Parts: sequence; structure tokens; C-alpha cells
Amino acid sequence: MLTLDKVFNAQTVLKNIIRETNVVRAYGIAPDCQLFLKPENLQITGSFKVRGSAYKIAMLSEEEKKKGVIACSAGNHAQGVALAATKNGIKSLICLPDTAPISKVEATKGFGAEVCLVEGCYDDAYQKALELRDSEGYTFVHPFDDENVIAGQGTIALEILNDLDNIDAIVVPIGGGGLISGIAYTAKQIRPSVKVYGVQVAGAPSMYNSVKDGEIECLSSVSTIADGIAVKQPGENTFRYVSEYVDEIALVTDDEVASAILALIEKQKMIAEGAGATAVAAVMAGKFDLKGKRVVAVVSGGNIDVTSLSRVIDRGLLNSGRSSSLLIELIDKPGQLKEISCIIADCGGNVTGVHYEKGNTESVNGCFLRIEMETRDFEHVNLITKTLRDEGFKLV
Amino acid sequence: MLTLDKVFNAQTVLKNIIRETNVVRAYGIAPDCQLFLKPENLQITGSFKVRGSAYKIAMLSEEEKKKGVIACSAGNHAQGVALAATKNGIKSLICLPDTAPISKVEATKGFGAEVCLVEGCYDDAYQKALELRDSEGYTFVHPFDDENVIAGQGTIALEILNDLDNIDAIVVPIGGGGLISGIAYTAKQIRPSVKVYGVQVAGAPSMYNSVKDGEIECLSSVSTIADGIAVKQPGENTFRYVSEYVDEIALVTDDEVASAILALIEKQKMIAEGAGATAVAAVMAGKFDLKGKRVVAVVSGGNIDVTSLSRVIDRGLLNSGRSSSLLIELIDKPGQLKEISCIIADCGGNVTGVHYEKGNTESVNGCFLRIEMETRDFEHVNLITKTLRDEGFKLV
Repeated sequence: MLTLDKVFNAQTVLKNIIRETNVVRAYGIAPDCQLFLKPENLQITGSFKVRGSAYKIAMLSEEEKKKGVIACSAGNHAQGVALAATKNGIKSLICLPDTAPISKVEATKGFGAEVCLVEGCYDDAYQKALELRDSEGYTFVHPFDDENVIAGQGTIALEILNDLDNIDAIVVPIGGGGLISGIAYTAKQIRPSVKVYGVQVAGAPSMYNSVKDGEIECLSSVSTIADGIAVKQPGENTFRYVSEYVDEIALVTDDEVASAILALIEKQKMIAEGAGATAVAAVMAGKFDLKGKRVVAVVSGGNIDVTSLSRVIDRGLLNSGRSSSLLIELIDKPGQLKEISCIIADCGGNVTGVHYEKGNTESVNGCFLRIEMETRDFEHVNLITKTLRDEGFKLV
Repeated sequence: MLTLDKVFNAQTVLKNIIRETNVVRAYGIAPDCQLFLKPENLQITGSFKVRGSAYKIAMLSEEEKKKGVIACSAGNHAQGVALAATKNGIKSLICLPDTAPISKVEATKGFGAEVCLVEGCYDDAYQKALELRDSEGYTFVHPFDDENVIAGQGTIALEILNDLDNIDAIVVPIGGGGLISGIAYTAKQIRPSVKVYGVQVAGAPSMYNSVKDGEIECLSSVSTIADGIAVKQPGENTFRYVSEYVDEIALVTDDEVASAILALIEKQKMIAEGAGATAVAAVMAGKFDLKGKRVVAVVSGGNIDVTSLSRVIDRGLLNSGRSSSLLIELIDKPGQLKEISCIIADCGGNVTGVHYEKGNTESVNGCFLRIEMETRDFEHVNLITKTLRDEGFKLV
């Protein structure tokens, strides 16, 4: 049974393990409301997950601690468990599918865990972890569906309420539901007027569907750039807490998430992973009634690999009209590239790529010219395409 | 004349204008020392500059305030002056060359400044600002060579010494020298044992050269990705303070800066601009004797535009062997791409781009194949190239 006492106790226990991440005012991201961020991406291990695992582990009996803990995860939960176990001076074993990226394996080892690579997929690794729990007596640390884990995440609400005297709403990402369960329960006990809103991605709406239909449902597949919250099924505890304490859940698209990641980079100079940016994405996209309100969006984590980050930035630039790509059908005659270059330059566009492509053009001698440009916004893109059309070029 | 009183006074004056950015411990960036960061990239306006301008402006007489202030900058100084003037309720006019990017102009306007676009380059805008100062009575806010501006930047040292009980060294980027003058003066007054190290980029070593030669020198040109510290000539005051109080100055390369930006993204989830990452770059590259020491690197700013950021990430990935590009000379016969793909896949490389290129190959029917891959590190790249060579492929 979750109690406020447990959350306060967790806060004391976590004091020397975690960082207290200070709420910051975020300007220029959501002009309609007063937006604040709870930057758990700046938390040690790069995610809030360490709070729940560390409290769970601290509460184990001496005997359980002696045997150690086991978990199954390739992501933030693995690192949280590993660090929490190390700080408590106990052994941790993390089961991972052998297809997990080397970088994740290394990061988990770096926090002091032993890694057990299991042939197959996530479910195989999970089965292996349960087997080892039974045969070796390890305690299994569930990533979300555990009262102590939830109490640990609840400390975030204590910090928010301590940092800000009056707030109207807290917006929180939902994967399995541990984070929002802890925050919603805690916030509503202390200040019942605070609204708690949850956010899932359209590609993994497990809690959204379950709450809507009033029973736990399991998705057959999930697909999103917010891999940290790509969870097929809510937990039993978390489903119950979310149903009782969360005011509303909304879905955001991957493109909305990419725009939020980009906004956090540009306006706040901070990196969020996909899951971590969903709450900000929901606020930016106006998914809740927050006009004029004082709102805290929880940025739950920042562990995005840089190659994905590079792709997200590119996508965000495209989505905001700050980069664009034109395909122009050319008749094969000299001077056309020059003419097009002049038009784009005169309009203030900055060409970053040019490719000639053969294809099914109207004339046998024709070809396609693909131009990549840096632009200011969609209006600017429209100006360039209109000018090219006016000069007789055929844009595909 | 700079005094410690002025710096303490600045701290009081700045209280409700700036953010007190908390020093954070940075793990995994420089294993040889205990590295802390002073994250002024998270400062309001995204850079420390607002401290100096805001103190300078607050110290103006009522008459001077009535007339307003003028500055010349396309970057962090402009935004600092704009915000500081707005917070003090006075007018600010920023002169910019008309070639300045729209985004910078908009950002400056966004903080409440009036913008005066001047035909020509930076020097033309600077001349115009001086003209307007003389004709209209505006106070000119110098970006670095001013005692009150330097006192404002000195507040960073007060915060560092307040956050950390014992530190051995502070590492600081140098452009014009205002930031390091304030920090070095303040730190040495309060705790003389603290070393203060300065960092410039190899493409703009104005203070480095001047201090080495014992007199102010002017560079004929500067070239670096750290545009925020691409300054041709130190100030008279800053040259004096740096000569007296700074223990050592080192130079870093643009590639070292790119690696530091990448490390800050991956390990700290924060964005630094080129100039902002130079101190971290120097620590990472072992430019000072810091082994086993407690070191604070000042991350001076985070205002990098996302397209540059994207390029820096790409460069950083290349520099660390996590992306790579192979050029393979092919004889024009079927099945070669398949064979190469198999080898790369078996070695665990992830192909992200393939291009056939014509060129001056040995055989008339030959061509070049360019392969772009995601890899783990240089060892991994070497494994792939060695395997390809062993299988008879000709790598260029």
C-alpha cells in the first residue's frame, strides 16, 4: 500500500544517492502558459528511474541485500538499478537480450552491474531474469509496478511542490505508469487542487487505451521514437493509481516529440530523450487546457544516442520549415542550375545539397534536380517555390 | 578600478535578474580529475554575458539610464544587453551588420532591444554604434573591456566558491577576456591558492599571443567554430588582469571543441556552444596539470544554432570512430555490393549510406563505392577495413 509516509521516507533515503534537480522556468516554448520544467534528464544516470530503484533496494531486508538484485532492461531502468545497487554496496545482475547495443551494455557495466546477455529478444531476457531470481534468490526489481518503486518516483512531486509555491498542473510522461503514479498520488495528497495530466505516444497508447476502456489491455506491438515509454501493458498497481489520481491522458505524435526535443535544445540548452520530451510536446501542441496556467512538465530523461539525436534534429528542422528539399524537373539544357541557384540565393535560401537524378521525366533528355536548403520557415519555403514556378520551373 | 566590493555589490544587484546556475559534478568526461561544471549555458539568455551588462547598466546614473544604452554584437552580448536594459526599464539599441542571421536579429528583439541594421560588416556596425553614442548620448556597453562588466562576470567566481568548499582550479574560456578577468581577480582575492587557467582556440589566439609576448597584439584574421570567442584583440583592462591573475593559457583545436560539445551532450545532457565548450575541451585534452585535482570548468554559453550543432555532432562522431566512411575501388562486376554488405554486417557495422561514384579507377569499367557506417570506435573501424582488405577489396 502506497502512503505519503513512504514517499517522505524515500526522500530521506535518496538524499545522498540522487541529485535534487531544480525546477526551471522555460521561456519561449509554450507562450500561452507559464511553463516550468522538472529536469530529470539532468538526474544522475540521465533519468528519474534511479529514484524508484534506489528506494526499492534500500528497503530490502539485510538477507535480501546479501543475495543481490536482478532486473531486465536495456535502458534507463538498468542504469538506475545498477547505480542504486552499487551505492547500497550490493550486487546487481542485469539481463539483456544479446542484440542490445554495445553502448547500453557498457553504460550498465559502468554503473557497477554484472550483465547477463541472453540469446533472443527482450521477453527471453525477462524469462531468464525470473529463472535466475527463483534459482539464485535475487530480488527482482520491477521497472514500474512496485509500491516502493512508485514511492521513489513520488519524491519528484515533493521537490516540485517545494520549489514552487503555486502551480496549477503537472504534466508527466507515461510508459508503464510508475512515474505518474508516484507523482499523481503524492501531489493529490498534499495539494488536491493540482491537476495531473499524463502523456503517451500515439505509437504506444497502452495506458491511454486501458484507462479509456476501464480495464488493463495489452498492445500487440509498439512503435515510436520514445522508446523509453514503449510499453505494451500497464501494471496492475499503476493502472489503479492512474485511474484514480490522473485527471486526463493525451497522446502525442512522434513528430510532436521531435519538435519538443528541438525546442528544449534551442530554448533550454538541454537534451531530452524521446520519452523525456513527451510532456513538453503535449504542452506545446495544446493537448490540455493550460491557458494562463502555471504548469510543470516533467522531462523524465535524456538518454538519447547521438545518432538518433542527429536524425531528430533533422526531422525537427524539416517540420518547422528550417530545412527543406525541392525536386525540380529539368530539361537537359545548359545554365539551369545557375538560374535556379540565383533564384534561391536572391530569396535568401542557403543551398546545402544538390543532386542530379535520372527518372521518368516528360522529355527523354530530362532529369530531376534535388535541392536541399536551409530556410527560415514555411513562408520562406513557399516564397522560394513560388518564385521558381513563376520563372517557369516545374516543381514535382 | 576593480575591487572585491564591486563584485559583491554586483552579486546583490544581479539577484533578481540572473539565474544562480548551480555547479554540477560531471562524471565520465575527464577520468583523471574530479570535474565540475559551472553551467552558464543554462543562464538566462543562454550565456554569462547578461551578468556583466546587467551590472554595468544598473550602475549608470539616472540621466544615463534615461538616454539608454547602445551595443554592437550579433551574439550573446547583444542578448545580454537587451535583457539587462529591459529588466532595468531602459531603452537599448543594438547595432548589427545587415548580414546577421535573421534568427539572431529576432532573438535580440525578443529580449526587448531595438535593432539597427547597418550596411556592411561588423566594423561598420561598430562605427555606427559609436556615432550614435556621440550624437544621441547613449551609453556604449563594451562587451568586455569595462570594469563594471568585468565585476559582473566576477560573480561567477563567488558562486563557484560558495558551491564548493575546496577546489584546486577553475578553467575559463577567453575571448576578449572579460569573463576570465572577473573570475581570476575574484577567486585570487578570496582564495589565492586556486589556480585559474584560460583557454583560447587555435584559430583565434589573441590573448594567448599577447600575454606570451607581453604586449597587446591584434590578429589579422580569426577562424574557429567557437565564434563567441573569435576576438582579434584583447582589451587593455582585460590584458592587464589576465597577465596578473591567470596562471596559464592553453589553446585547443576546433576538433577538440567538437569532441567536448559531444561529451557534454552525452554525459551531461546539455548543449554548449563552441566557445562554451573550450574549457571542457582543454580539460579533456589534458592541456593543464590537473591529475587528481578538483576542477571547475566554466561552460560559458549554449547559443549554438541547430544546423551547426548537427554538423558538430557529425564531426564528433567521426572523430571518435563512431561513424566512418570507406572508399572502395570496385571492378564493375555483379555481386560486389552484396559481398561488402555481408562483411560489414558480420563485423557488426551499420551501413547508413551507399554511393557509387565514377572516377579515375585503374580499370575503365571500374568505379568507387563510398560506404557510410555507424561503428563503435576506431578499433571497430580497423576490424572492418582489415577484413575487407583480407577479402581482396581495394580501399582507397
